[in-house]
Amino acid sequence: MRICIVGCGAIGSLFAAHLGRLGDVEVWAYDPYQAHVDAINANGLRLTGRSDFVARVAARSDARQIPPCEFGIIASKSTHTRAAIEATAHVFADGAVCSVQNGVGNEEIIAEYVPRVILGTTFPAGHITAPGVCNQDTGGSTWIGPFAPKPASMDEVRRLAEACTRSGMDVIAMEDARGAQWTKLIFNSASNAMGALTRLPHGVACDQPGVRALMSVLVAEGVAVARALGITLDGDPEKMIDHGREVAYHHKPSMLQDVEARRTTEIDALNAGIARIGREAGVACPMNEAVAAMIRGLEHSWTLA
Amino acid sequence: MRICIVGCGAIGSLFAAHLGRLGDVEVWAYDPYQAHVDAINANGLRLTGRSDFVARVAARSDARQIPPCEFGIIASKSTHTRAAIEATAHVFADGAVCSVQNGVGNEEIIAEYVPRVILGTTFPAGHITAPGVCNQDTGGSTWIGPFAPKPASMDEVRRLAEACTRSGMDVIAMEDARGAQWTKLIFNSASNAMGALTRLPHGVACDQPGVRALMSVLVAEGVAVARALGITLDGDPEKMIDHGREVAYHHKPSMLQDVEARRTTEIDALNAGIARIGREAGVACPMNEAVAAMIRGLEHSWTLA
Repeated sequence: MRICIVGCGAIGSLFAAHLGRLGDVEVWAYDPYQAHVDAINANGLRLTGRSDFVARVAARSDARQIPPCEFGIIASKSTHTRAAIEATAHVFADGAVCSVQNGVGNEEIIAEYVPRVILGTTFPAGHITAPGVCNQDTGGSTWIGPFAPKPASMDEVRRLAEACTRSGMDVIAMEDARGAQWTKLIFNSASNAMGALTRLPHGVACDQPGVRALMSVLVAEGVAVARALGITLDGDPEKMIDHGREVAYHHKPSMLQDVEARRTTEIDALNAGIARIGREAGVACPMNEAVAAMIRGLEHSWTLA
Repeated sequence: MRICIVGCGAIGSLFAAHLGRLGDVEVWAYDPYQAHVDAINANGLRLTGRSDFVARVAARSDARQIPPCEFGIIASKSTHTRAAIEATAHVFADGAVCSVQNGVGNEEIIAEYVPRVILGTTFPAGHITAPGVCNQDTGGSTWIGPFAPKPASMDEVRRLAEACTRSGMDVIAMEDARGAQWTKLIFNSASNAMGALTRLPHGVACDQPGVRALMSVLVAEGVAVARALGITLDGDPEKMIDHGREVAYHHKPSMLQDVEARRTTEIDALNAGIARIGREAGVACPMNEAVAAMIRGLEHSWTLA
């Protein structure tokens, strides 16, 4: 089996390194960050932290050098989905491509370029500490399933899940993985937007009653959209927020990290994604619209002198 | 006539300096900023910019040194209203005290300390450029009227307005000045909250369609509260927003300046004030509540390590 990881940041590195340990899987990785690619090719891809090993991965910053693959795992930031799949589409001319990215809307973009798509949601987290080195911060499962508008077969979904799970990344194949995706999406949208706008770590934000109440408003809108789409959530985003307060009080949500670094955020795939899908489904999401507008305004402020 | 200006920042300095030119008015000023007080006493209070003159003002940082006055004009930031009137209440034991501060709620606090209160709203703007020196940036009128729960007499209101107007500060005496106050309050709340949360100057914020739409949501909530209170606005906050875009495109609303300097903002007197009064009047203000919660969260973030 030949798999290409597209976007070899923290999440991509976790998948690539684990799969790279298997004898029967050939792992390629595409990433535009040349120093990272060179280090991986020279020394292997090293995981530290929760996992600690080195795996052989063939990394490329020029996607034309990657052979056809049966499977793809897109792990870029959602802001780079189109660029990533545009560069690698030829690799998956007869492949099934799975998104394990944040938020909604990624599979729709991927489906414009490849024949069969798998929808996914992943919980492990990590961060790149040096070229060729990724620290795994947390573990957790991944849920994948056919993307209904342009689905991979359940057989493909199961084969990908089986390889990942055997490699140490717990991946669960489902007929409908949207419940997992939307549960995490709704949690993420509330936590990230409040972090980005108040600059508070997750737990501190939860302890501000007005801010915590706003998270609930954002969650309620997201839950209403999921219900309108016929999606059964597989967890309670409110409980995830409270659980996050317990286990990651000082954690800065990734969108807060983006704001602090003045990087384009994933707002389009999070609150703005919920609001857009809500509009299409006839469900008003005024608070998700509002925070999306403010975060886009904030992004615009970084372009001013 | 003896008048004491309480809080001799930009607005207080404009009133103090203009009134200080009149031969029949004795002007005192209270401010805790010692270097400013010393410079005023040594060299007079100088205005530059739109006005350009020096006036004689007796400034004190110790309010016990100020004699009883017939009138007070409170011009501190709304965050300092209680401290300011607590320090100077004895000066106005038989006086009428007028707030020309931003937002709502200041008169209620002042009324806890003095016998007669005047409600006011002022438009001129300036900034302190050095101790004893204030640049007048813009002109504009001031509207004042009895504060109904603990009113000064219309005669007092007219006498204060007459002295100010004669000194060059156009002040209009009204039976009910709440329409002017709420018109500016609603405009200010929309413009300041969006500036503070997006970090965009007023005109740039107006050109972001999502942000401009949010200003309209904030305005509509404020207008509904004013209506519930039986207040007839004397202008259209929407037009003020668009006019501000024309004449002050690059202006950073004061709350954005506060956020950039990590100073406590006037949120309690602006969006949170509208929301609080709305709650009391049975008018829901979810968006004003939301931006107030986020700005309070932002203020809290400055206290973290």
